[in-house]
Amino acid sequence: MAGALGVKATPFTYAAHALAAAAAVMVLVWAIHFRGGLAFEAVNKNLIFNVHPVLMLIGYIILGSEGIMIYKSFPGLNHDTAKLIHLILHTIAIVLGAVGIYCAFKNHNESGIANLYSLHSWLGLGAISLYGIQWIFGLVTFFFPGAAPDVRRSALPWHALFGLFVYILTLATSQLGFLEKLTFLESGGLDKYGTEAILVNCTALVVVLFGTAVVIAAIAPADKVDEPEGYAPIPVVG
Amino acid sequence: MAGALGVKATPFTYAAHALAAAAAVMVLVWAIHFRGGLAFEAVNKNLIFNVHPVLMLIGYIILGSEGIMIYKSFPGLNHDTAKLIHLILHTIAIVLGAVGIYCAFKNHNESGIANLYSLHSWLGLGAISLYGIQWIFGLVTFFFPGAAPDVRRSALPWHALFGLFVYILTLATSQLGFLEKLTFLESGGLDKYGTEAILVNCTALVVVLFGTAVVIAAIAPADKVDEPEGYAPIPVVG
Repeated sequence: MAGALGVKATPFTYAAHALAAAAAVMVLVWAIHFRGGLAFEAVNKNLIFNVHPVLMLIGYIILGSEGIMIYKSFPGLNHDTAKLIHLILHTIAIVLGAVGIYCAFKNHNESGIANLYSLHSWLGLGAISLYGIQWIFGLVTFFFPGAAPDVRRSALPWHALFGLFVYILTLATSQLGFLEKLTFLESGGLDKYGTEAILVNCTALVVVLFGTAVVIAAIAPADKVDEPEGYAPIPVVG
Repeated sequence: MAGALGVKATPFTYAAHALAAAAAVMVLVWAIHFRGGLAFEAVNKNLIFNVHPVLMLIGYIILGSEGIMIYKSFPGLNHDTAKLIHLILHTIAIVLGAVGIYCAFKNHNESGIANLYSLHSWLGLGAISLYGIQWIFGLVTFFFPGAAPDVRRSALPWHALFGLFVYILTLATSQLGFLEKLTFLESGGLDKYGTEAILVNCTALVVVLFGTAVVIAAIAPADKVDEPEGYAPIPVVG
């Protein structure tokens, strides 16, 4: 869509990188300074939980976002190299996302907290499952064994559209996670207008801005337009 | 984007209407059967709160969605008529949304509950404020006094893109609202795996599917393409 707006992708990738750095620092400050730190094994089970938001945001969302943007972040990058980095970043993102989800279950199980009843868990499991399906279809179609050129061409817009759908679902899930955790803390006595509450809500807002920049970077044309495989003009009726 | 996918908008508008009807019934069953009903004035302040999800979903989101889709729902509709219905539906949606938000504040104030500390309230106020700005710019540019034709043409893709951004933000806010309210109820003893909890989460999922259908209907070309004012092919690089 952004093509008709006359904007190019690269400035949005710069904004996204900066917002990603801000969000990463904010979630680390929250987990380490306010919530006591990170651990895979601990007597204080909260430290195991803390790994969850850190890995989901920095590992799953930010690395996944950089994977989405790789074709736009470095306009001069060779297309095959960009494709390989795209695959590697999404692979690392899925693995770290799975570890992050494992830490949430581990915390629940070791603390006697119920699993899988909240909308955050439902949408989140749905999102990472669809992400996994997208990963497998992408690998088979575009890498190994790779589909015929005309199949790739017709599959590419579906890959991009479905990828953005899963991405927006992932962003929504992160918002649910911030709200759910903060609501639990506030029910337990945390000041609703205190520093930590403001930090968590502002981290969530930075994630919204970050995700918006990533989506615009994904749909806006690259600064150096060299008609990559599957490029096609797409009509929009407002 | 959906243009390159070879899909047309109309089937998605049918799916959206059906999902809207399902979501409307589900939120009414929740508010009336499970939560005791609706009221503007009541001793039981919960009944005042119940107006909030009903108006935000049926009034704000569903009517606003029908406004977004009007150009696609009836492919044979005269463009000026569609434009007028687009304006009217969005106007009613904003008014009902404002009344719905008022009911949340009214419930909080009459029950001694804090206002504006949660991510749901932050994102929600942000979304309806941006919706209002979008409404004013749309009115001035496309209705009265109306901008020059070339200004309209260049403003239309911005209007569509910004509108979809606000719309997705609104959907995310609704998810936060379902989760927040259900978390409060569950903290108060509601069965986490009971009928009401499942109903609320499923209503939220229906809203996600509904919103997805609306966004695809908005970006897919109309079944009868008659090149409306401002129509422009838009390039996407996957």
